[in-house]
Amino acid sequence: MRVSELSSASGVPVATIKYYLREGLLPRGEVTTSANQASYGAAHVRRLALIRSLVDVGGLSISAVRKVLDAVDDPSVPLHQMLGATMETITPGPAGAEHDEYRARAADEIGRLIADRGWRVSGTSPARDTAIDVLATMRRVGGDRLAGLLTPYAAAVERIAEADLDTVSAVPDRDLRAEAALIGTVLGDHLLAALRRLAQENVSATRFAPPPPEST
Amino acid sequence: MRVSELSSASGVPVATIKYYLREGLLPRGEVTTSANQASYGAAHVRRLALIRSLVDVGGLSISAVRKVLDAVDDPSVPLHQMLGATMETITPGPAGAEHDEYRARAADEIGRLIADRGWRVSGTSPARDTAIDVLATMRRVGGDRLAGLLTPYAAAVERIAEADLDTVSAVPDRDLRAEAALIGTVLGDHLLAALRRLAQENVSATRFAPPPPEST
Repeated sequence: MRVSELSSASGVPVATIKYYLREGLLPRGEVTTSANQASYGAAHVRRLALIRSLVDVGGLSISAVRKVLDAVDDPSVPLHQMLGATMETITPGPAGAEHDEYRARAADEIGRLIADRGWRVSGTSPARDTAIDVLATMRRVGGDRLAGLLTPYAAAVERIAEADLDTVSAVPDRDLRAEAALIGTVLGDHLLAALRRLAQENVSATRFAPPPPEST
Repeated sequence: MRVSELSSASGVPVATIKYYLREGLLPRGEVTTSANQASYGAAHVRRLALIRSLVDVGGLSISAVRKVLDAVDDPSVPLHQMLGATMETITPGPAGAEHDEYRARAADEIGRLIADRGWRVSGTSPARDTAIDVLATMRRVGGDRLAGLLTPYAAAVERIAEADLDTVSAVPDRDLRAEAALIGTVLGDHLLAALRRLAQENVSATRFAPPPPEST
């Protein structure tokens, strides 16, 4: 199909499709016999849906989308590392995060957590740096009041990660598996955040609000 | 102290402080006897640290920060509702999310999940809408491949929310408690996302990578 038809099929405006083509997010269509005409197929429709979900729902920048799609499209990148590329998709600490006593202490805590739980993770993982930066900021702003959260959070994410990997491993096709890992990780953050608010509301209602009147 | 001193104490440039004052994020200082001079104190330093952490690490917009700080500053808002205000801080679905079969099905699934788990949550909770939008997008892009995630995610966030409320309830002062809830919820999303990447890396390494050589 032509660009105009790809636009109709995907619901994405022609100008936006051309922008994605220029930015290298969307592969060029096959060039057909007629000189300036490229032809697009179902794979392009699917890729557009993926890009829109990462941008609109995942809140990702175009450059973050390019990085993770490059990892998805490179068959030599193992799933293991592809998941690492999705680190690009969470807000990093501020550039030049303060290297103060809070950060040093947070680095110790995260290091101890990883050792205590026996996690096999790279010493240079960007996720580790982000965890340290966020924890340091929590302490800098909130003092020791939030100190008790780290262990229950670690226990919870272990179960989440098992479910994530179970789900992704069950997808037989390599390309679809990479896409599922990407969607699951990026949109999963948002699904978890929304479910967490609901669960907080429930715990708060259960602890602090009077029980609802019996329905009659 | 004067604005220039507040800038030194907080590390926030004077122009940024004046912007926050205009935007109503930072309360005006007390007006002293000398005509155009306002005086700032330790509460302003603390508030600036809170704003910076929400903007820099939490990735919040200025308008989102204003909304949640309004809830923090209003003593008539119960903690219960204050946590609800933090929904403003996660990326909402795209404006005018598609109301297609995927969304209808996702709404059913979230409704059933809430009923099955006995969660006491408002029928009009924005968190519910966000969960529905994200789940619908996951299905629209990923088909049924990610369907198994909802239940383990719900189980995990229940434990996270218990830890969140335990931590916040332990803070005796109302203002500090509201701040702790805000920091814990907003930065907690990012800490959870980073720890989730680490846990994924660990599960992935454990399942797919060869064991590390024994250290000698």
